[in-house]
Amino acid sequence: MTDAGPGGHIESLDAAECYERLRSRSLGRVAIAHGDEIVILPVYYAVVGDDVVFRTAPGTKLDAAMLEQRVAFEVDGASPGWSVLVQGHAEQIRDAGEQVGARSHLGNDWPAGERDVLVRIRAERVSGRRLPPGS
Amino acid sequence: MTDAGPGGHIESLDAAECYERLRSRSLGRVAIAHGDEIVILPVYYAVVGDDVVFRTAPGTKLDAAMLEQRVAFEVDGASPGWSVLVQGHAEQIRDAGEQVGARSHLGNDWPAGERDVLVRIRAERVSGRRLPPGS
Repeated sequence: MTDAGPGGHIESLDAAECYERLRSRSLGRVAIAHGDEIVILPVYYAVVGDDVVFRTAPGTKLDAAMLEQRVAFEVDGASPGWSVLVQGHAEQIRDAGEQVGARSHLGNDWPAGERDVLVRIRAERVSGRRLPPGS
Repeated sequence: MTDAGPGGHIESLDAAECYERLRSRSLGRVAIAHGDEIVILPVYYAVVGDDVVFRTAPGTKLDAAMLEQRVAFEVDGASPGWSVLVQGHAEQIRDAGEQVGARSHLGNDWPAGERDVLVRIRAERVSGRRLPPGS
């Protein structure tokens, strides 16, 4: 896809380029529908297989609203600008072995005493764009 | 609001802190519901009054899907991390005087020959958070 956008024509990234960029970052953003509104929240993430995994805390809005929903996840960068969008369903990682694997990718800076919920976004659609220069 | 999150407890930003940070950036992200899926797209933006304005091109997904919808807009930064979320309805700016004002805030790097659609998100809810250190 090409798409006219701010600053010029936007070029698509192929799947390999999308995953290369996804793996190059650790902070992304999840968007979820929450009642009749949309929420965007930043998360620290890792790529495991083709999926995006991240932690959230039990009882948070993210935890309550997101699981089993279709969500969007975005990562971007500047100089020159680009963005990658992952769309898919979110689900809690409940298998003990998969939890160990996810935690090993995510690092261990989760505070002692806090329980974490591990979430996986099953990537059903991955798309990316190169952005034109900013204003 | 405080909320347990990755790396520790997250602190809220007040409205003045949210707008200070919104005005400090030019690249943000809009999330929209598009059929049964959610799309997140980066946009170059400006703050005019209490609202977020940006350009898009006629005929794009953003143009078609977003107008008159309730959308979310997010800006974030690192070191130390923070994020600001603006929620509200998006609408096309049609008044000629308001178009001139919006363009003056957005700068003039729109390519010659391209028509732009000017969009305003009427900020109905603005919230922000300081993030804990990343992994």
